[in-house]
Amino acid sequence: MDYYGSNIQRLIEALKVLPGVGTKSAQRMAFHITAMPEEEVRALADAITNARKNVHFCKVCQTVTDDEICPICRSKRRDHRQIMVVETSRDLAAYEKTGHYEGVYHVLHGSISPMLGIGPNDIRLKELLTRLQNLDEEKADEGSMTESELIVATSATVEGESTAMYILKLVKTLELPIKVTRIASGVPVGGDIENIDEVTLERALRGRTELK
Amino acid sequence: MDYYGSNIQRLIEALKVLPGVGTKSAQRMAFHITAMPEEEVRALADAITNARKNVHFCKVCQTVTDDEICPICRSKRRDHRQIMVVETSRDLAAYEKTGHYEGVYHVLHGSISPMLGIGPNDIRLKELLTRLQNLDEEKADEGSMTESELIVATSATVEGESTAMYILKLVKTLELPIKVTRIASGVPVGGDIENIDEVTLERALRGRTELK
Repeated sequence: MDYYGSNIQRLIEALKVLPGVGTKSAQRMAFHITAMPEEEVRALADAITNARKNVHFCKVCQTVTDDEICPICRSKRRDHRQIMVVETSRDLAAYEKTGHYEGVYHVLHGSISPMLGIGPNDIRLKELLTRLQNLDEEKADEGSMTESELIVATSATVEGESTAMYILKLVKTLELPIKVTRIASGVPVGGDIENIDEVTLERALRGRTELK
Repeated sequence: MDYYGSNIQRLIEALKVLPGVGTKSAQRMAFHITAMPEEEVRALADAITNARKNVHFCKVCQTVTDDEICPICRSKRRDHRQIMVVETSRDLAAYEKTGHYEGVYHVLHGSISPMLGIGPNDIRLKELLTRLQNLDEEKADEGSMTESELIVATSATVEGESTAMYILKLVKTLELPIKVTRIASGVPVGGDIENIDEVTLERALRGRTELK
């Protein structure tokens, strides 16, 4: 039913394509927009079109960025022999916020999920492979002895784990001289043991480390 | 920190002005937008600017609409001697959805709230008054004997109640020959008595009706 006239109705429908926005919140947003100062509304509309039009992916690590190559990949202070594979640019930001990672990244933009029909060719694995092969050649050129490391930091879900396994297999098949590691899975800091699921507890137990 | 480049960062900030959108959901929306088909993005941006630019308020009842006068106020099948006062166009839509109201509306676009600094002049009370006075004259012209009714359907909050009291006082002071009623307040249908607050229960008790 069209109780608000076609302009607002169209806006409500358009807002509903956004993730986490249902009819009620779309309505609330639409009415908020009609009451906003006109220049703020224009800024919002411009930000939407500009972000879509000017979105670039870093040529090296594939994260979203303004330029050809992102600031992290350009930085001389980062360890370019340590590459962390993450699913999304948001995951990259999460690791950056810890302030404890000195290496570089590779953003897959998804994870392998046969359920959703997402195969290895639908995420940026080809780019990772090319990158690892180049790293191999560079290393031969430089005669460097430091070993490269690929930290697979995909999430601890079925899809994330499958993607990690796939990457490991790929590196082994191509006999790339790079160490593949996986982030630890276990009890989250501050978590009550009694509220944690069995699979996580079993992982925490299996991944126990010696206290020295 | 700017991990995503300025375009996406700007979009995240712009989205955060919308009600109910925090940093996390703005990020999720922003990345969704960068991955959306370009024409869908343009449609969203256009819907936003158009809704703001073309928003009209019905000259009679003040609800948002496409034309000068809204379909309800234009309708000959509605009872124009029964006016329901609501706070927002969304409230109007809620009553329309019941399908049990045959009268017309008046949308205040807010309620009196000294806490938020919203006084009687900040909501569309002046328009309501003009309308009631015209109704009075029309009635005299037509020699009609049917009494007009003003149903105050503002919400059962402190602000809604104060607004209702203010309207009643106004009608009385100006000696307008119109009956003012207030929607019933009580136990919501399907609600468990034990989970209902005391104020609502007391209202439900005070407002009891005889079963016949």
